[in-house]
Amino acid sequence: MRNAAATRERIVAAATAEFVEHGIAGARVDRIAAAADANKAQIYAWYSSKDGLFDAVFAEHLKLIVHLVPFDADDLPGYAVRLYDAYLDRPEIVRLAVWARLERMPTGDLLTAAAAEVAAKTAAVRAAQEAGVVDPELDPHDVYAMVIGLSLTWSPASPTVTAAAGDERRDHDRRRTGLAVAVRRAFRPG
Amino acid sequence: MRNAAATRERIVAAATAEFVEHGIAGARVDRIAAAADANKAQIYAWYSSKDGLFDAVFAEHLKLIVHLVPFDADDLPGYAVRLYDAYLDRPEIVRLAVWARLERMPTGDLLTAAAAEVAAKTAAVRAAQEAGVVDPELDPHDVYAMVIGLSLTWSPASPTVTAAAGDERRDHDRRRTGLAVAVRRAFRPG
Repeated sequence: MRNAAATRERIVAAATAEFVEHGIAGARVDRIAAAADANKAQIYAWYSSKDGLFDAVFAEHLKLIVHLVPFDADDLPGYAVRLYDAYLDRPEIVRLAVWARLERMPTGDLLTAAAAEVAAKTAAVRAAQEAGVVDPELDPHDVYAMVIGLSLTWSPASPTVTAAAGDERRDHDRRRTGLAVAVRRAFRPG
Repeated sequence: MRNAAATRERIVAAATAEFVEHGIAGARVDRIAAAADANKAQIYAWYSSKDGLFDAVFAEHLKLIVHLVPFDADDLPGYAVRLYDAYLDRPEIVRLAVWARLERMPTGDLLTAAAAEVAAKTAAVRAAQEAGVVDPELDPHDVYAMVIGLSLTWSPASPTVTAAAGDERRDHDRRRTGLAVAVRRAFRPG
């Protein structure tokens, strides 16, 4: 059975790369099978369909989507800047989430399968509000969502400018500083 | 020739709906031809390929992507709230931009074809900085990008929660208020 486990791992790795690059509709099971050195019949036997394979890949990455960097409600500016860096290092995580949004769930909460993790973050925001670090007038869910929104400004999902690892260092530094300033001011008690 | 113009219009309308729903890789020229009551050979003669047809659709919507609501550097909170409402009314505009980002341009400036329009907005931010309405310490390009980022918090590109027209009125109102508060504080002079 170790052989089957290794094959599954290769399939999920190959499928992740394929979905990250092409999305669900654009992904080809032929290419996944070839890249994983597996056969298509085996993939369909295990995952039923290309959609079933995407579900497995998304489930496997859900924790990483939600916990790409440790959440810190007492330091939202630092959290946002660490997310900026993480999107540069791991653009594939943002791309997976956004493909799921576009191709699977046009409205509503994308992260219901990680509801407990998201609830823990909201509770941390509430505690920071009670401690006087975050404005208590704002809804804690909205604070969390807006910090993510701001952090995504230059992300692989941006409709304006997506940062690249090869951008000038001063551009990265200027964006990080601006992001930290904006987050600090936006959510502190008024 | 009026007939040809009408056919082109039907093709672009059908292609827009198809790309908004399925993206570039997921779009099917067969479905576009059927929906437009046109034939595939005519589509390929005019647009060369599915990619050429996407280019035409994207170019046609570029102004709308950049000018979905009038920009107002003297009232960034109001601008962000109007964008929140516009994304609810016209989710297809955000979806087109994000498909282009994912499938065409993983990094860099997505809106180079509208550089003059974006430069006008940046100039307006600079004027608002000189007038003391927006923090002059922030880069005007970054202010523009971050306002868009915040406004997209609950948009059709969100990896957290995408607002739907059918959400409770109090949810919409709470998000609009939170967004206006966050934008006002984030970008005013410190």
